[in-house]
Amino acid sequence: MADTPQVGTPVHELDTPILLLDLNAFERNIGRMAAFFAGKSTVDLRPHAKSHKCPQIARRQIESGAVGITCAKVSEAEVMAEAGIEDILVANEVVGPTKVQRLAELATHCHLMVAVDDAANIDELSSACQKRGASLRVLVEIDIGMARCGVQPGPHALALAQRIVDVPNLTFMGLQGYEGHLVGIVDAQERAAKVCAAMGLLQETKTLLEMRGLPVAIVSGGGTGTYDMSSSVPPMNEIQAGSYVFMDTKYIQVRPEFESSLTVLTTVLSRPTPERIIVDAGMKAMTHEFGWPRPIDVPGTSVVGLSEEHGKLEATEPEAVLLKPGDKTCFMPSHCCTTVNLHDDLYVVRDGVLVDVWPIAARGCAQ
Amino acid sequence: MADTPQVGTPVHELDTPILLLDLNAFERNIGRMAAFFAGKSTVDLRPHAKSHKCPQIARRQIESGAVGITCAKVSEAEVMAEAGIEDILVANEVVGPTKVQRLAELATHCHLMVAVDDAANIDELSSACQKRGASLRVLVEIDIGMARCGVQPGPHALALAQRIVDVPNLTFMGLQGYEGHLVGIVDAQERAAKVCAAMGLLQETKTLLEMRGLPVAIVSGGGTGTYDMSSSVPPMNEIQAGSYVFMDTKYIQVRPEFESSLTVLTTVLSRPTPERIIVDAGMKAMTHEFGWPRPIDVPGTSVVGLSEEHGKLEATEPEAVLLKPGDKTCFMPSHCCTTVNLHDDLYVVRDGVLVDVWPIAARGCAQ
Repeated sequence: MADTPQVGTPVHELDTPILLLDLNAFERNIGRMAAFFAGKSTVDLRPHAKSHKCPQIARRQIESGAVGITCAKVSEAEVMAEAGIEDILVANEVVGPTKVQRLAELATHCHLMVAVDDAANIDELSSACQKRGASLRVLVEIDIGMARCGVQPGPHALALAQRIVDVPNLTFMGLQGYEGHLVGIVDAQERAAKVCAAMGLLQETKTLLEMRGLPVAIVSGGGTGTYDMSSSVPPMNEIQAGSYVFMDTKYIQVRPEFESSLTVLTTVLSRPTPERIIVDAGMKAMTHEFGWPRPIDVPGTSVVGLSEEHGKLEATEPEAVLLKPGDKTCFMPSHCCTTVNLHDDLYVVRDGVLVDVWPIAARGCAQ
Repeated sequence: MADTPQVGTPVHELDTPILLLDLNAFERNIGRMAAFFAGKSTVDLRPHAKSHKCPQIARRQIESGAVGITCAKVSEAEVMAEAGIEDILVANEVVGPTKVQRLAELATHCHLMVAVDDAANIDELSSACQKRGASLRVLVEIDIGMARCGVQPGPHALALAQRIVDVPNLTFMGLQGYEGHLVGIVDAQERAAKVCAAMGLLQETKTLLEMRGLPVAIVSGGGTGTYDMSSSVPPMNEIQAGSYVFMDTKYIQVRPEFESSLTVLTTVLSRPTPERIIVDAGMKAMTHEFGWPRPIDVPGTSVVGLSEEHGKLEATEPEAVLLKPGDKTCFMPSHCCTTVNLHDDLYVVRDGVLVDVWPIAARGCAQ
């Protein structure tokens, strides 16, 4: 088996493929987002841990002013709570007896909040919390155009909010609306206009609920592509952005104020022809739903395909590309969140030297 | 945290998303392939463990007559050797000091074979094996049209084979040529014709080497899509097929003699509109490079998208589809190998009841 590499090892002596975290760039990203929210008195950052699945990063986010963290799944939240994170939003519906029981149990260990979009689910959550003696904060999820989960804005949301208020052990806290269909729009003006319209749907619903005597304390949503836009108009007051800590080829086009801090280090396996270079990382180490990963230290090459365990690069001017078998080379992932989920550890690097290894403790936590 | 479910639990009480293995279908697949090779006196099965990454399955394959197993990576091979598998081919180039050292170390624990396509790599392997007192069997990889790793057929292969013979601690065993570009061709006649031509390239090279006094004992390659075709013409005599144990939406079109034994069990999270059904498995539980996963127990629905943790189904006749939040439903993966790599365990089921949980011990072993 492989030995865990020693702190102090130069990056290019590390075995591959691995995920590298450039600590300088990462710290600047954390600092930049913290500074933005430090200047906002009415909006908080509750970063999404699905991007990193790593308690060490969650802790740094909290230390930098985040009010808590967001998780996608109960199992992710369990890992974060175990690591001492106290305030957690599971920003999805949690459905079915086993998982609802896990959620109620978890609610006795940390300050927990969950999203709902269905009346029967509210009853199920309330029963489980009564049985366990737990109390749970609840947001009603509104579909603000993404067409995934969530009820339509308006009266449906009112009915669910009322039900939450009516059942024991649940506390109605507000609304969730994720503008996930807008976060990747490259044109900033178009993105801002569409975000503004989506926030309008949340605002209308908030007004309706408050007119009926149901105060909406929290309105949660937002991503790295929209954190500033969604927090500049009412009513969103908790932003779930997550990818900003790492960035990727998709987000780097949309958010030049953050830096790429996450790369996949690979080794050249073969250069069977001058044009073709094969590295030891394929789909099992780098995802590709937002395009091929980008070679970042070898100009004049691009990825033209991934097999399971091979990445295929093409050199447009082969004589200018010196890569040979055994050389190491880095890629920027096209989607940081799913790429992180393929790896067990983040190899934390400062100035070209390994300074720490952070376990991706919630990797694979899809339940 | 979740309790490990008890043997005897009905499938529909298991928490989701998880990978289910239908033991009856799986055993029939293993048996069917074993019967095919039992009838072949000159060709052996060395199934690829990249598909399952699971020692329990590798052991069953060996017990059913496989001569050993194939792995994609050194780290995968380490897990298999640790679990008692004795004869292992790492069917790729292993390059660079750290990994070559791991390989040499592993060669002292099991009967190991590796592929090469570069002279400097041969020297590197020989040095490491000398230093460790290990001996290693080596195949020269030939590019038979896939355009990934491998030297061109003919004189290049001869030069490498000669070098293997000339250096200490390595034994030249033969050739590897993987017809990976042909395994998915749906038309069986076209597939067979192209396989025949690709085998011709291996045969020419084998003849050339043997004329120069370099006996070619092993010619290794083949996949689930080509196992019968590649083993019916000379010179291939070890077949690396792997997916046949599970199958997936891609292979099921090509190989009706094997059954789908692997599914992803999910829970309906939300049905926000009659047409739209959202389940709790997305790209972090099911891959999609060969298309969306296929719903298998709800006719009239199809997957129209995956987010990280959500699968979006559309019902064409909503009134005929009864799924509601909390219901469980299964999907056939579009690519079994990469889907397995997202999960830690296989939930082994017979007749609708959990009978075992097999760890996917080599999951994430990309080094």
